[in-house]
Amino acid sequence: MSSDTVIVAPTVRERCRQFIENGQVQRILLTLILINAVILGMETMPTVMAAIGIYLVMLDKAILAVFVVEIAIRLFVHRLAFFKDGWSVFDFIVVGIALVPASGPFAVLRALRVLRVLRVLTFVPAMRKIVGALIKSLNGMLSIAMVLGLVYYVAAVMATKLFGEAFPDWFGSLGASLYTLFQVMTLESWSMGISRPVMQQFPFAWAFFVPFILIATFTMLNLFIAVIVNAVQSMHDEEHKEEHDADAATQQQLLLQMQQLQQELQQLRRELKKPTAE
Amino acid sequence: MSSDTVIVAPTVRERCRQFIENGQVQRILLTLILINAVILGMETMPTVMAAIGIYLVMLDKAILAVFVVEIAIRLFVHRLAFFKDGWSVFDFIVVGIALVPASGPFAVLRALRVLRVLRVLTFVPAMRKIVGALIKSLNGMLSIAMVLGLVYYVAAVMATKLFGEAFPDWFGSLGASLYTLFQVMTLESWSMGISRPVMQQFPFAWAFFVPFILIATFTMLNLFIAVIVNAVQSMHDEEHKEEHDADAATQQQLLLQMQQLQQELQQLRRELKKPTAE
Amino acid sequence: MSSDTVIVAPTVRERCRQFIENGQVQRILLTLILINAVILGMETMPTVMAAIGIYLVMLDKAILAVFVVEIAIRLFVHRLAFFKDGWSVFDFIVVGIALVPASGPFAVLRALRVLRVLRVLTFVPAMRKIVGALIKSLNGMLSIAMVLGLVYYVAAVMATKLFGEAFPDWFGSLGASLYTLFQVMTLESWSMGISRPVMQQFPFAWAFFVPFILIATFTMLNLFIAVIVNAVQSMHDEEHKEEHDADAATQQQLLLQMQQLQQELQQLRRELKKPTAE
Amino acid sequence: MSSDTVIVAPTVRERCRQFIENGQVQRILLTLILINAVILGMETMPTVMAAIGIYLVMLDKAILAVFVVEIAIRLFVHRLAFFKDGWSVFDFIVVGIALVPASGPFAVLRALRVLRVLRVLTFVPAMRKIVGALIKSLNGMLSIAMVLGLVYYVAAVMATKLFGEAFPDWFGSLGASLYTLFQVMTLESWSMGISRPVMQQFPFAWAFFVPFILIATFTMLNLFIAVIVNAVQSMHDEEHKEEHDADAATQQQLLLQMQQLQQELQQLRRELKKPTAE
Repeated sequence: MSSDTVIVAPTVRERCRQFIENGQVQRILLTLILINAVILGMETMPTVMAAIGIYLVMLDKAILAVFVVEIAIRLFVHRLAFFKDGWSVFDFIVVGIALVPASGPFAVLRALRVLRVLRVLTFVPAMRKIVGALIKSLNGMLSIAMVLGLVYYVAAVMATKLFGEAFPDWFGSLGASLYTLFQVMTLESWSMGISRPVMQQFPFAWAFFVPFILIATFTMLNLFIAVIVNAVQSMHDEEHKEEHDADAATQQQLLLQMQQLQQELQQLRRELKKPTAE
Repeated sequence: MSSDTVIVAPTVRERCRQFIENGQVQRILLTLILINAVILGMETMPTVMAAIGIYLVMLDKAILAVFVVEIAIRLFVHRLAFFKDGWSVFDFIVVGIALVPASGPFAVLRALRVLRVLRVLTFVPAMRKIVGALIKSLNGMLSIAMVLGLVYYVAAVMATKLFGEAFPDWFGSLGASLYTLFQVMTLESWSMGISRPVMQQFPFAWAFFVPFILIATFTMLNLFIAVIVNAVQSMHDEEHKEEHDADAATQQQLLLQMQQLQQELQQLRRELKKPTAE
Repeated sequence: MSSDTVIVAPTVRERCRQFIENGQVQRILLTLILINAVILGMETMPTVMAAIGIYLVMLDKAILAVFVVEIAIRLFVHRLAFFKDGWSVFDFIVVGIALVPASGPFAVLRALRVLRVLRVLTFVPAMRKIVGALIKSLNGMLSIAMVLGLVYYVAAVMATKLFGEAFPDWFGSLGASLYTLFQVMTLESWSMGISRPVMQQFPFAWAFFVPFILIATFTMLNLFIAVIVNAVQSMHDEEHKEEHDADAATQQQLLLQMQQLQQELQQLRRELKKPTAE
Repeated sequence: MSSDTVIVAPTVRERCRQFIENGQVQRILLTLILINAVILGMETMPTVMAAIGIYLVMLDKAILAVFVVEIAIRLFVHRLAFFKDGWSVFDFIVVGIALVPASGPFAVLRALRVLRVLRVLTFVPAMRKIVGALIKSLNGMLSIAMVLGLVYYVAAVMATKLFGEAFPDWFGSLGASLYTLFQVMTLESWSMGISRPVMQQFPFAWAFFVPFILIATFTMLNLFIAVIVNAVQSMHDEEHKEEHDADAATQQQLLLQMQQLQQELQQLRRELKKPTAE
């Protein structure tokens, strides 16, 4: 009996796999995501909600149901391997959020439901590739980002100690300082908004802000350059390798032909020597 | 009689084509556009308008008439093919705007008449080339721009749901959120102007704005890098191909000469073998 | 007598040239410029001026006198050719400014005297080279800058017509619009400061500002990329040419040797044929 | 006896060197720095300080004592050579700051103690390498930075003379002008915050600010490009050299083989001539 189950089970799983990986089904799911995106956008419009709100919510729930079934099938097909694929985990989470009862302290989850729309990234291979490239380009930035992070942390602790008491809103806690210095790094109102008021009380505050901006922007610039150089390099490597391989092949051919020539010449000498030796 | 017409008609069209594509005529039209640009600038000056306003308006109308005739001739010459060329359609629209009666709800069209000055782009080949290159460079950005657009849309829906009620001016509708998040993406007053006031009511709003800025600026950075890499690549390809072709030609010459050498050597061996065989 | 003058004159000119181009003299002049820079900086400090102001002004005038003599000598040496060199004209103007009586409407010229310090650029060859490179890199940007300038002008005329009456401070005249749109291009307070107030009265003003920012920043980005690509290209060309030339030389050597080989082989065949023919 | 000391001393020094350069010890020191970083962060939190403040300060002092011992050992091991290594001097200063009694006018030094956390950069080789690369990339920027600095200084003196009296907060002294123009260079509130108020009194102030922004941002852009070009070049050189060396090696091999061929052919001719000469 157990052997029967074993034989039947794979067939069902296999059929499910074929169904869920079918191009037509994928296109339908993508269309549903896009419709869902429009619905979620329309749900923010009071006039639309007043008119056809009930239908929108119903449609939204129906589409959500389809997604839940889809994820369930994929879970059944791939079992635990499902959680090894980053994109699957992403789908699981953004669909899962919609199922948590968003009431009381979890009311914010209602807004997070919109993240479901990002599943477009999962379904369009071109976008998947780009997100992959973006994430990959983060790797090359990791070590510089750590240096920047360290400078950022040290500056935040210093700012909290120096200006925390006088300016509790901006530097009152480590978190506040981290936020304010992030703002300073984006150069948003760093002087008129933050540094000049601080300088009213600490005339030498510029000696903190100006070096921080110089170091932070210069390090960020180098972060960007690392990404640019990586991109240029990988582009360059790709095309150059091909071309270089072609060149190398021609040269190898030259060398080979030269060796054949030399052998032929040596053969000739040996042939000529023989009769003269005779 | 009909055959006569047939014979005459092409000649008129051909003459029109020659007239409109004549270098001298083109230069006159370009000069008129530049004069028109100055006139349109002067029309914004009250003192100038008070003094010679009537003449300026007259001159403006005269130049417009010339443009209308020019477009009419080009329409007559190219017929429907006229609308297949992007530049022609552009000329047609910017001249056409000036003919629409700009009154009542269309008063804004009066301001759009200035777009006519952009016809300089159509008439100067160097500028035409640059605009073409700019538009072409957009292609390489398309897929990243779509990812950015998706993130932007999702963030706008979320912001509307989260902050819409409390801050109707900034996040009251999807449109308002899209505008505000565009401002945040340009980093303009994102913190002092938007994020800090929002944090007064939603202390965890930074958890929305900071990741949004990080993702948006990082994606935009990659948009820029895509353009840079494309530009470097096309420059590189162009010059490299030439150089590489020259190298390949030399190597092919080497190979050919080598083969001749080998043939000659084989010939020699055969010649030497013959007498020894004798 | 006139011939005597003719013989004497060149010698004096030649001596002047040797004097003014002498390395020691050049170094003294550079030192004077740097001292002048410090003096001009100290002249902005009230306490310093109260204490040693008289001596500073005297020293400043003495240094200026030296500069006037220097320019006079160079004018005497190079005559009209003096005005063909951009750096000389620059020196002439910045020293000349100091001689104009800076009173009444020309009071602003007193501030322009500081430009004299920029003569350091003329005297340090390394800086001269960099300024030259900066100016040269402008060439590659010229055509894109013209497209940007055209878009900028058209936008300014449009903004004046659309918003001029309602917001005279920002868009009241063509000049005001050009200034405001320059500010918008730098993204400074474009939304909170300009666009949002305008949208209070013209709700669709975003349809002017957002596309303007997108087009302007994208075109500026391409301006920057043009500079980057030019810089990479010139760097690339330089090193690559050298390397490529070396490669080409080796290949030419190969070809030559191959031809010699072939000739030698043909010679051999001819030599072998002769005895067999005998 | 003195000779004994001489014999013993190096052994102690050598042992100290081995101890301090031991991988295990280095890891412990790195861990202590990271713990110290957390402690220094926690010291900014009032609730944490109220609860376990005494223990944190004690732990902080204990870790500082370890650092002092470590620096002392390294000083004993390397003697004066210790001060020749930039990283050692850095360690010496940031640990030394903590020993200065931070009271009275030196109260600010208490905040500088956090700099100790930056010793992570000294202990992680990857980070050391990046900081080294960042500092090295500054070299390529030096000459452009000097041009920028000169323009910046001249602009500050001019601004002080022009606007100093009317706007003492922004341009009252050379220092104030330098700070304000730094803000303008970062484009922060340059127009709404600084330039527009100044233009209320000096209508032509835009003729100072707009060119300053254009020149400063263009020069900064070229600073960045210099860094990018340097980075691309060094990447390019590295990989290209390798590849080019391989190509050159193959071509040298070809030349060599060709020469052998020629020698062999000449040998053959000589051998053939001899019998015919006989």
